[in-house]
Amino acid sequence: MALAGTGVFSEIIDGEVYRYYADGEWRSSASGKSVAIVNPTTRQTQYRVQACTQEEVNKVMEAAKVAQKAWARTPLWKRAELLHKAAAILKEHKAPIAECLVKEIAKPAKDAVTEVVRSGDLVSYTAEEGVRILGEGKLLVSDSFPGNERNKYCLSSKIPLGVVLAIPPFNYPVNLAVSKIGPALIAGNALVLKPPTQVYDSFGIFNSFTECEGLISCVTGKGSEIGDFLTMHPGVNCISFTGGDTGIAISKKAGMVPLQMELGGKDACIVLEDADLDLVAANIVKGAFSYSGQRCTAVKVVLIMESVADAVVQKVNAKLAKLKVGPPEDNSDITPVVTESSANFIEGLVMDAKEKGATFCQEYRREGNLIWPLLLDHVRPDMRIAWEEPFGPVLPVIRINSAEEGIHHCNASNFGLQGCIFTRDINKAILISDAMETGTVQINYAPARGPDHFPFQGLKDSGIGSQGITNSINMMTKVKSTVINLPSPSYTMG
Amino acid sequence: MALAGTGVFSEIIDGEVYRYYADGEWRSSASGKSVAIVNPTTRQTQYRVQACTQEEVNKVMEAAKVAQKAWARTPLWKRAELLHKAAAILKEHKAPIAECLVKEIAKPAKDAVTEVVRSGDLVSYTAEEGVRILGEGKLLVSDSFPGNERNKYCLSSKIPLGVVLAIPPFNYPVNLAVSKIGPALIAGNALVLKPPTQVYDSFGIFNSFTECEGLISCVTGKGSEIGDFLTMHPGVNCISFTGGDTGIAISKKAGMVPLQMELGGKDACIVLEDADLDLVAANIVKGAFSYSGQRCTAVKVVLIMESVADAVVQKVNAKLAKLKVGPPEDNSDITPVVTESSANFIEGLVMDAKEKGATFCQEYRREGNLIWPLLLDHVRPDMRIAWEEPFGPVLPVIRINSAEEGIHHCNASNFGLQGCIFTRDINKAILISDAMETGTVQINYAPARGPDHFPFQGLKDSGIGSQGITNSINMMTKVKSTVINLPSPSYTMG
Amino acid sequence: MALAGTGVFSEIIDGEVYRYYADGEWRSSASGKSVAIVNPTTRQTQYRVQACTQEEVNKVMEAAKVAQKAWARTPLWKRAELLHKAAAILKEHKAPIAECLVKEIAKPAKDAVTEVVRSGDLVSYTAEEGVRILGEGKLLVSDSFPGNERNKYCLSSKIPLGVVLAIPPFNYPVNLAVSKIGPALIAGNALVLKPPTQVYDSFGIFNSFTECEGLISCVTGKGSEIGDFLTMHPGVNCISFTGGDTGIAISKKAGMVPLQMELGGKDACIVLEDADLDLVAANIVKGAFSYSGQRCTAVKVVLIMESVADAVVQKVNAKLAKLKVGPPEDNSDITPVVTESSANFIEGLVMDAKEKGATFCQEYRREGNLIWPLLLDHVRPDMRIAWEEPFGPVLPVIRINSAEEGIHHCNASNFGLQGCIFTRDINKAILISDAMETGTVQINYAPARGPDHFPFQGLKDSGIGSQGITNSINMMTKVKSTVINLPSPSYTMG
Amino acid sequence: MALAGTGVFSEIIDGEVYRYYADGEWRSSASGKSVAIVNPTTRQTQYRVQACTQEEVNKVMEAAKVAQKAWARTPLWKRAELLHKAAAILKEHKAPIAECLVKEIAKPAKDAVTEVVRSGDLVSYTAEEGVRILGEGKLLVSDSFPGNERNKYCLSSKIPLGVVLAIPPFNYPVNLAVSKIGPALIAGNALVLKPPTQVYDSFGIFNSFTECEGLISCVTGKGSEIGDFLTMHPGVNCISFTGGDTGIAISKKAGMVPLQMELGGKDACIVLEDADLDLVAANIVKGAFSYSGQRCTAVKVVLIMESVADAVVQKVNAKLAKLKVGPPEDNSDITPVVTESSANFIEGLVMDAKEKGATFCQEYRREGNLIWPLLLDHVRPDMRIAWEEPFGPVLPVIRINSAEEGIHHCNASNFGLQGCIFTRDINKAILISDAMETGTVQINYAPARGPDHFPFQGLKDSGIGSQGITNSINMMTKVKSTVINLPSPSYTMG
Repeated sequence: MALAGTGVFSEIIDGEVYRYYADGEWRSSASGKSVAIVNPTTRQTQYRVQACTQEEVNKVMEAAKVAQKAWARTPLWKRAELLHKAAAILKEHKAPIAECLVKEIAKPAKDAVTEVVRSGDLVSYTAEEGVRILGEGKLLVSDSFPGNERNKYCLSSKIPLGVVLAIPPFNYPVNLAVSKIGPALIAGNALVLKPPTQVYDSFGIFNSFTECEGLISCVTGKGSEIGDFLTMHPGVNCISFTGGDTGIAISKKAGMVPLQMELGGKDACIVLEDADLDLVAANIVKGAFSYSGQRCTAVKVVLIMESVADAVVQKVNAKLAKLKVGPPEDNSDITPVVTESSANFIEGLVMDAKEKGATFCQEYRREGNLIWPLLLDHVRPDMRIAWEEPFGPVLPVIRINSAEEGIHHCNASNFGLQGCIFTRDINKAILISDAMETGTVQINYAPARGPDHFPFQGLKDSGIGSQGITNSINMMTKVKSTVINLPSPSYTMG
Repeated sequence: MALAGTGVFSEIIDGEVYRYYADGEWRSSASGKSVAIVNPTTRQTQYRVQACTQEEVNKVMEAAKVAQKAWARTPLWKRAELLHKAAAILKEHKAPIAECLVKEIAKPAKDAVTEVVRSGDLVSYTAEEGVRILGEGKLLVSDSFPGNERNKYCLSSKIPLGVVLAIPPFNYPVNLAVSKIGPALIAGNALVLKPPTQVYDSFGIFNSFTECEGLISCVTGKGSEIGDFLTMHPGVNCISFTGGDTGIAISKKAGMVPLQMELGGKDACIVLEDADLDLVAANIVKGAFSYSGQRCTAVKVVLIMESVADAVVQKVNAKLAKLKVGPPEDNSDITPVVTESSANFIEGLVMDAKEKGATFCQEYRREGNLIWPLLLDHVRPDMRIAWEEPFGPVLPVIRINSAEEGIHHCNASNFGLQGCIFTRDINKAILISDAMETGTVQINYAPARGPDHFPFQGLKDSGIGSQGITNSINMMTKVKSTVINLPSPSYTMG
Repeated sequence: MALAGTGVFSEIIDGEVYRYYADGEWRSSASGKSVAIVNPTTRQTQYRVQACTQEEVNKVMEAAKVAQKAWARTPLWKRAELLHKAAAILKEHKAPIAECLVKEIAKPAKDAVTEVVRSGDLVSYTAEEGVRILGEGKLLVSDSFPGNERNKYCLSSKIPLGVVLAIPPFNYPVNLAVSKIGPALIAGNALVLKPPTQVYDSFGIFNSFTECEGLISCVTGKGSEIGDFLTMHPGVNCISFTGGDTGIAISKKAGMVPLQMELGGKDACIVLEDADLDLVAANIVKGAFSYSGQRCTAVKVVLIMESVADAVVQKVNAKLAKLKVGPPEDNSDITPVVTESSANFIEGLVMDAKEKGATFCQEYRREGNLIWPLLLDHVRPDMRIAWEEPFGPVLPVIRINSAEEGIHHCNASNFGLQGCIFTRDINKAILISDAMETGTVQINYAPARGPDHFPFQGLKDSGIGSQGITNSINMMTKVKSTVINLPSPSYTMG
Repeated sequence: MALAGTGVFSEIIDGEVYRYYADGEWRSSASGKSVAIVNPTTRQTQYRVQACTQEEVNKVMEAAKVAQKAWARTPLWKRAELLHKAAAILKEHKAPIAECLVKEIAKPAKDAVTEVVRSGDLVSYTAEEGVRILGEGKLLVSDSFPGNERNKYCLSSKIPLGVVLAIPPFNYPVNLAVSKIGPALIAGNALVLKPPTQVYDSFGIFNSFTECEGLISCVTGKGSEIGDFLTMHPGVNCISFTGGDTGIAISKKAGMVPLQMELGGKDACIVLEDADLDLVAANIVKGAFSYSGQRCTAVKVVLIMESVADAVVQKVNAKLAKLKVGPPEDNSDITPVVTESSANFIEGLVMDAKEKGATFCQEYRREGNLIWPLLLDHVRPDMRIAWEEPFGPVLPVIRINSAEEGIHHCNASNFGLQGCIFTRDINKAILISDAMETGTVQINYAPARGPDHFPFQGLKDSGIGSQGITNSINMMTKVKSTVINLPSPSYTMG
């Protein structure tokens, strides 16, 4: 890793293995074992990380609990100051952190830099948002409720949850780590980060926060050893997870703690006859093929009116032909998918569609983890790809004969993350948005998480809780109230 | 008045003159004088009301101040209970109250009943809204602001303003009285009502509230005697006025008190080429000719794309031909305008337009205060009717060649109450709405005050402050804060 | 049951067994089995209820899902109308419903009536609160976030969760059922009620809502058969549970659904030297012995400064001597505890304290389920009763030498429901409240759930989520957002 | 002025006369006239400023109107960026700006620096607050109100008022200018600043904002020439004034524009028998004598229980004896008051009290504008100083025999800015705070404007509107709503 061994990152590495972070310092696990991180492009081990033990996890939890109590007594503006500093460090080190993203998850170089910068903005925005959300509670009086006089004043505040366990996914390891770390910290919580085992650049992010010793830790290891151990740990007071089906399993094991989960999606793009077809094509290509389709909010199925389908398919194909396919270092548009098993899974969906008669708009092509962009037309509901999430650069098109048909397909999914509808008609836009059972509906734009202060949430198997900066902060707090009981009624006079 | 002398209304009348209401009882003025109320249809005096003296106003103000202090110490749910009771009384007496509206302001009989019922709903909604708005304040902590620890807890509440002077207009004398009375009372204020001199059915409304003695008064009289005297009275802590230009004069004389004013409007209806033309025609007729155009939010100028103008004018004319013109007792659509001077003013605008070449879609016809509905096509900016508010059943149509032209005309007005835009296009709808400088823009519907919980406000000469139930309650309160200063920082732990 | 067989309750009973309610009608289970409800006073079976099958549960879930979709399309004011009607029915039938409480849970007759009336108020308040909370969403613009122009308008609403599973406890079976039913319904959810197996008066409550067919169901049965089956059912979208440890077990099995749980408590009452000792004594007696201590928010341990302990103990003893002990029908203050096993558990705690040297202020006395009120002085941390929740009329007193000692004991508990602090000193009151790690702290008053619009929540093992009318409604919704994407930036002008 | 002629301030001066700022540049008035600024310490002319003409004011207004329309279309984060930059410039130039405060208003050197730094923090906080307040509107649906289905979606936003006229006072010329400029700008308004004629350091502040050309202007001149002309100018859409009685006169002349006014005060300090007397004495000295009592929120009358009066008077006198009296350059505690007429007014109040028998705790001493600190004991209600605001280092003490007597005196004042109550008793603290009719009540602390995000407002003659960062931003906006009307009901499903 370009960062390691130099400057603020000097203590990160121990021989060939990256350390974990606990109690304010970088440590090597007593296990003596490590886990390999494979470069998706070269398919070679790029880095190795510590395989932490359960005992080490226990110590991290204990330290977090102690640190949290002190942190919760830190003025809000001082918490914000720390986050602003971390944001500045992130932006300052954007180059080496972005390089990690290129090597570990084959993210196109330019997008990797963008992710880091956007993450810095997110952290700063979170700081200022938190100062306001946490600094304002409610004052309630008793005489609103029938039968009461005003002799009780209730002061209700938002207080921290305690220790937040944050588990970000591989695809936006910086952005989706800080979107958990920032809210957790500004709200007065301690944080234990379990980075995705595929990647380890979170070291970079993580180091940005080293100032708050003991308050934030980063543990790595094998899922079989510390996965359930972490999520079922009695010291955990909140789990914030972004990823796939694992989330559902976690929710069934976790104790009585708030869950903030964003899992998979099968975001539909409904295209009506009156849509701006150039806008549609541009959004389909960007929406479905950015970062090779490895995005929760990627367009994952196009539901298009028969009458305009040919035109749109043609426009999309023209654009796909111009995409650059290759290694991330060259700023290719399409890069290798994250693992070989992921590539195999995608191929399975494609072959199933082929057998069942889907039209291939491009020839299917794969080299190692690298899969060429592919549009599958005339997909039908009996094909797996109509319902499953490829998380790769392949996109099914289903032709529909009415908006209702599109809505029905969208709502029949067990996912409910986002969806989009392309139409010029204001009435149709609103009515169809209201009818689509997804956490967000984009009118005339591809699904998107950002801007980061917008609410972001999945329905059904796509998640629980709502994110976006404001909502994430709120979800990482709980309510406490103090009631001042007076001996006689008192009304505020002026 | 059908109400007088019977049941709850038995004490209202003294010989031929209606009493005023002060300190919990109906009184005759020491002036021995009265003011006549003329029936717009018959043009004969229908009723007479007391001409109160300045001394009587002074007494009303003193009593209000005393009553308010006690009322402000009444539990919120009890205040609500009173309003619910008043709402029930209003609805129960809808027939006789509506009959007053028919006689005094020539409101079509059916609309008059609707107004009373809707007013009852408004009062009940206001009661429950107030219980919530007034029952919740803010709790702020000091450590949000740089340099502070958490040693100050600020408890901020909404408290009453004191005595509210409410001056409703003639056109919705029940609805626009209770939309001031309800918010004022639930918020803990006393209220002095100065009903429009043309009408006196407010007696009906007013009586609904008689239970809260001294807290609410109703004074009548000549503007020259008690008009400025009331608005400049040092005992007044808020003025809520709905009406015409008088409002601007009041604002220049009033002291340092919050003003909530809704004055005139020249609501534009912009029609684009892609609009649903039947929807447009229906909304123009309803929007411009209901209650003979005597509505603040009436459509007062149509700005229509040349290409669809003929079609819409034709559709509107067809509908106008079906309107029933005559006395309000017959449930006519078009009834006599409120005064002879108003009819003369309307005629002046019509004649000016005629001279300058406007196309008359119907023959101009007037009998007494009754003016037949008239659409004026090909109106140009040099005609008075392009800018002035007729407050009668005459509507100018200006043909435009671009949306920008329509926006420009709308924004060149010194009014800014509402406006509407008819288009199917979602982008145009939003962009044009944003560009129109009016308090509200209706997309694909005629301007409208309701539903009554929506915000309602005029920009520029159309008003100050925002109404709608929630906003009206908020405007009739002020902020008071109590700061608990602690000897050492204290953070809420959980 | 006094209700059964007459009036609105005529269809409730089938022979000797009460029916369950599904799809708008009262039904007998295909199981042919029933469960006995034992009267705590007589220790005889008072009623029998249906032992529903898993298949019946499945049908209820399917019906609820279908009904919910229609209900979510019902105007808010119509939903409120239904709740107001239910509130009226509840109040109208307060006598027979209260009688059930007397027979089934030995609640003193007067308290039983109060519970029903208060429940009616709660339902009405919930209706109006919901109209407002659900009727208002957020409008967010994109240009708040760095790098964005205003070309995205995000409309964020609160939408229903789907099917809510409500499991109230035995002690306030009416109140704690409607505090789940009301919020669930007004928010547009369907509801499946699983009443506590000990009691069945919920029939009374339940019948109030019969108008909304299919939307609300009530299933009874053996925990072993349908307990986990219900809580792990894939058709459940939210679990609202009030009760004991079972809640923690449920949370570990439940899927990815929001949990609103209020479990046990060990509410501490900290008494400082400067407290008003008469106020303290009165609150201890009311707080600890009302309904024989069978309240979540009962005072469950007194932590009192040594210097004032004797005086307070004396005052409390004097009050205890006046309490009436006996059957609920006689309006006794202390009535039999709910089950024999509960009485045995209480006795176990008392005997443990005796062995370890606690001072008994009264003689320990028990007859069947009836336990005489008992104050245990000089309790020490090594006694079980210092930490465990008796849920009966026995109260431990621990003498402390500093406020810190009291705070420490309070925070060492694994519960964190409420607590109270008695002191005249404003600084101590706030600082100690902030330091106590409980969901609510009452200053100079015993712990209390109400007034019902105040937030109510437990920390640690006392619960998850926040209740109180407003918070409960919010918890039974999720966020959905619609983003209008514009082709160019648009700023609202005025 | 130390700033002039160097660096960013180089263009400020023309010969001996400071320029005014309009349309993005520093200008000399066509009047050829100037106004003198007198140094309170030397009583010599320190600077001269332009005497602008009415024509120049007209041009400023026109330019502001044009600039505002463009500014309102600037992304919120860009507006914030400008304010952050201005905050940095302010802090960077704290030394020269503070020096102006020393020379122009005799502010102690150290306090002057504090004011500038605090002002920078205020501007930054305002920026981030505005991004959030302005970026969030409401989404309302029609079916909350009885009789409606959900076919109307109301999008309500906060929009700028237009051109804000800001008139800060002499005593905190930097802080109270930026507390108007910041909110006005972030909310999208243009701003015209009329600095207090006594001081001109606002140049310093003002220059910080020069980047936003035309949007912000600064005009100086004689009140008789441009005073009323400005406040009655039709181009003004809001007046934000801090100062004395002039505010009431302005409110009577101003048109229909929102007023935000903070005028005088007579802040009472009520001291009960159980108060911490050392805390009381420290707060009285700091509260009444800081900046020689020239603060709106200075303690202006002490209302103290007879039984503790002697002790507190003694403690206060001991502290007064240690205050350093002299020129501001020496960091004296007590410095010359701002004008000779002010000194004469103070002397008048003192002499009146002497004649009527007040006890002088110190000898009355005055040299030029410099008045030595003076505590007047045994003041009675017949003395002018019991009711009038000296705005100087003299403080009346009134002995009371009950809390009610203190409350009565406080509420009998025509002012209602702040007040404070010293007591340890939580019940008395709240009940008395509620009873005091002032905008804010401080419990156990002297009155204070800050922290700057707390609400700040005066009742009665002390002002209109509420300030504090959040409230000031809100007051400088108005509401605009857009209603999307749908052809059929649409409910958001999930």
